[in-house]
Amino acid sequence: MYRSNLSSSLLQDAVDELSSLPGIGRKSALRFALHLLKQPSENVERFSKSILKMRKEIKYCKNCNMISDSDICPICSSSSRERSLVCVVESIRDVISIDNTGQYNGLFHVLGGIISPMDGTGPSDLSIDHLVSRVAGGSVKEVFLALSTTMEGETTAYYIFKKLNQFDIKISTIARGVGFGDDLEYTDEVTLGRSIQNRQPFVPLSK
Amino acid sequence: MYRSNLSSSLLQDAVDELSSLPGIGRKSALRFALHLLKQPSENVERFSKSILKMRKEIKYCKNCNMISDSDICPICSSSSRERSLVCVVESIRDVISIDNTGQYNGLFHVLGGIISPMDGTGPSDLSIDHLVSRVAGGSVKEVFLALSTTMEGETTAYYIFKKLNQFDIKISTIARGVGFGDDLEYTDEVTLGRSIQNRQPFVPLSK
Repeated sequence: MYRSNLSSSLLQDAVDELSSLPGIGRKSALRFALHLLKQPSENVERFSKSILKMRKEIKYCKNCNMISDSDICPICSSSSRERSLVCVVESIRDVISIDNTGQYNGLFHVLGGIISPMDGTGPSDLSIDHLVSRVAGGSVKEVFLALSTTMEGETTAYYIFKKLNQFDIKISTIARGVGFGDDLEYTDEVTLGRSIQNRQPFVPLSK
Repeated sequence: MYRSNLSSSLLQDAVDELSSLPGIGRKSALRFALHLLKQPSENVERFSKSILKMRKEIKYCKNCNMISDSDICPICSSSSRERSLVCVVESIRDVISIDNTGQYNGLFHVLGGIISPMDGTGPSDLSIDHLVSRVAGGSVKEVFLALSTTMEGETTAYYIFKKLNQFDIKISTIARGVGFGDDLEYTDEVTLGRSIQNRQPFVPLSK
């Protein structure tokens, strides 16, 4: 739409690149570009270099596949973490989300995706063998599967469960139930049904 | 919020920079960063360099202040443009918006802002003197003020009007009225009042 009349190929190229960001169309990309044009040159240099540096220098933790500045990530190298508990997640973002709750103090294992025949992702594309070898190491006592409650998530969880069943460990999953702030009236039947089956002792929120 | 636990200072720096973009919070910035991490290295290099190159090499047209790859922008150097008509706008974005309508074939003059005592922007911060000297040159027959219909826009328009009144030129402004697709019921009284005063001959849209 803006292709022909941005009056500058330099601006055009930057807008093309910025509109490749997820959820960003050409209008927002133009807004970003014009914003960057107004910034001091050294700020734009810092902006530009931080992105390239991240892409070129970032490492993946050899233990859990989380992004890291070094070979072992800060979570895996922390001495205050419970090392016998491993939370299995789909992506780096899930690690950040779970860590942000402040409710989890174990280690992680990032699969790097989820089993999805539709997208052509099979078990061998994920770091499941690596997870099995971590468990085979002997120090893991519980594997906590924190995957999406979708068909793909359930399939992946089941596949991992079958692989880990040979070991004498506990395999847990995130609690299913009605979300905080959800209206019972609008909760789907499967969720509501499970949350009745798995009813829990009442604990006041303030506790 | 994400400050303490992104597990990588490289990622953290990139997220900090990306969240400086207008309208982008830390969650979106993290999404952008993780997206860029998944791209091939050469794509991220192109992304990063296009932004820096734009900031370092872009020029401003010596005639109209529009961004340009050279000293005179493609609009000002075009031979098919009506050179006696100059549209005065606040920003580069307005040039793009007006040009995109395909309804305007004159030249432009970018003020680089709008008179706003609240933001500390006075007439001397804008390229108004430059506009006056363009008009004084003698080839301009009409100045078309396409400024926002806000208090600041009206003030700026009036200031420019007073400055240009000494010349024998036509000074016009964008038509005020009810926007296309607007519901009369929800149109404010000033707009509706003016659109009644300035009622126009009916022209079917398909024409």
